[in-house]
Amino acid sequence: MEWKDKKRIGVIGGSQANEKYLDFAFQVGHLIAKKGAILICGGLSGVMEAASRGAKKAGGITVGILPGRSPDEANPHIDIAIATGLGHSRNSLVAMNADVLIAIDGRYGTLTEIGFASIYGKRVIGLGTWDIKGIIQAHTPEEAIEFAFR
Amino acid sequence: MEWKDKKRIGVIGGSQANEKYLDFAFQVGHLIAKKGAILICGGLSGVMEAASRGAKKAGGITVGILPGRSPDEANPHIDIAIATGLGHSRNSLVAMNADVLIAIDGRYGTLTEIGFASIYGKRVIGLGTWDIKGIIQAHTPEEAIEFAFR
Amino acid sequence: MEWKDKKRIGVIGGSQANEKYLDFAFQVGHLIAKKGAILICGGLSGVMEAASRGAKKAGGITVGILPGRSPDEANPHIDIAIATGLGHSRNSLVAMNADVLIAIDGRYGTLTEIGFASIYGKRVIGLGTWDIKGIIQAHTPEEAIEFAFR
Amino acid sequence: MEWKDKKRIGVIGGSQANEKYLDFAFQVGHLIAKKGAILICGGLSGVMEAASRGAKKAGGITVGILPGRSPDEANPHIDIAIATGLGHSRNSLVAMNADVLIAIDGRYGTLTEIGFASIYGKRVIGLGTWDIKGIIQAHTPEEAIEFAFR
Repeated sequence: MEWKDKKRIGVIGGSQANEKYLDFAFQVGHLIAKKGAILICGGLSGVMEAASRGAKKAGGITVGILPGRSPDEANPHIDIAIATGLGHSRNSLVAMNADVLIAIDGRYGTLTEIGFASIYGKRVIGLGTWDIKGIIQAHTPEEAIEFAFR
Repeated sequence: MEWKDKKRIGVIGGSQANEKYLDFAFQVGHLIAKKGAILICGGLSGVMEAASRGAKKAGGITVGILPGRSPDEANPHIDIAIATGLGHSRNSLVAMNADVLIAIDGRYGTLTEIGFASIYGKRVIGLGTWDIKGIIQAHTPEEAIEFAFR
Repeated sequence: MEWKDKKRIGVIGGSQANEKYLDFAFQVGHLIAKKGAILICGGLSGVMEAASRGAKKAGGITVGILPGRSPDEANPHIDIAIATGLGHSRNSLVAMNADVLIAIDGRYGTLTEIGFASIYGKRVIGLGTWDIKGIIQAHTPEEAIEFAFR
Repeated sequence: MEWKDKKRIGVIGGSQANEKYLDFAFQVGHLIAKKGAILICGGLSGVMEAASRGAKKAGGITVGILPGRSPDEANPHIDIAIATGLGHSRNSLVAMNADVLIAIDGRYGTLTEIGFASIYGKRVIGLGTWDIKGIIQAHTPEEAIEFAFR
């Protein structure tokens, strides 16, 4: 299957997270890659880095949509780094470029991504994240992936 | 007092709202202007238009930060229309340009504005809006204004 | 006449310029205000500041569309400062919000604004700026204003 | 070599072009891929599509940074489509994400990309494009590639 026909799954969450959520993110990224989908994320640290690392471990493809204006600020597990220079407004672009999103933990940045996902009509699966109307709450990485690919 | 020294209060909320919230928005806009502050909003219909109308009725100044690329799409009560061509990503700019925000009703667009306000360290006063950690909930337009100017 | 019905003239040019062009910018800003139009600019130093100062000297209204995310970075002669957080990409918004633009001196940032103005179908008057197809070249501030309001 | 270590060459030019320039674009894209670099472009038709087609013919990787908010608007030769929803302001992101740019023909959109490339300190090689100070003018696709990879 060509890349442009692959499903694109967004993983959103904070640039800092505790071990439990970093582990969830790693597993989610790993499963996304095993399912043959492309990982879309914000390209930085924390949940974004753990998910990217998981995806690369399984031989997947990772895209990081960055707030700054240099592709070099991406974490080392990003294949395609896209600099935007938009600051936090780039959160809108993360939501725009995923078919479905999985929100893991996260604070106000993640909240904006959940909001944009809903505006753009994308499903959001939650893993220990905000309790917002419309989010499909999952309890494990496996369940989140099951909901995302359903 | 010069304009650049005036307080800038953002009013956020949906482009559609029921009569109760449109009335709240009108009163909030009216009180903002009476207090000598500038109204910042998204420039379109619904809560944005009602608040702008209220502010102009009291002789205030209204700024509308628009999603499209033409200043002409502003509602008729906007003094200074700023086109951005950013679509929904302009929500970030509404939050960025207010000192304090009052959220009235609203759906996912308002949710993103609440998230950005928190990221940018701006207080958010709520009037019948999302129940998000950090929002200061008010029950009347007068109370919202009191909290905003405190 | 209400503000929303006033003509909006963009003044573009570098954040650094020699005395001749700063003087041109001051005069252009002054004449824009005397004509009753609103000055739109990038809100920073150099040509932008000189034009804003000229406009305020004549009692005009000045709008600065800023690259950073704080309205406080505007020069002191800006009435309405709009923070965008877009960095240099905000040049597109300066062009978008003017009915006509006057380019004074300037380097590559001004070049992008000239390009965007042409894309958005806005006339560009030049004063010692890039020699780009489509620009109407003027030789004095008075002539530039005459061309802009024609 | 991993993708993140590959050189990224931007190809900019109009969404419409005559046969000569479309052929130049195809050859430039082909040579970029043969050199092992990633093609960055605006993802739409004309020069962008021809360059992407050339790159894919040689087994390369193509990234399209789109103005609209759907990745589906990319031309069929784009591997990684990035929707931005920024309209013409996305031109800034095309320049930001390339190490070097090759401008082929083009009108005002290309002019803004040339300007942004200069602002961001990226070299621009020209092939029948604007005659702007700082552009290194080439006469054939081979020469453009030689200059780009030097």
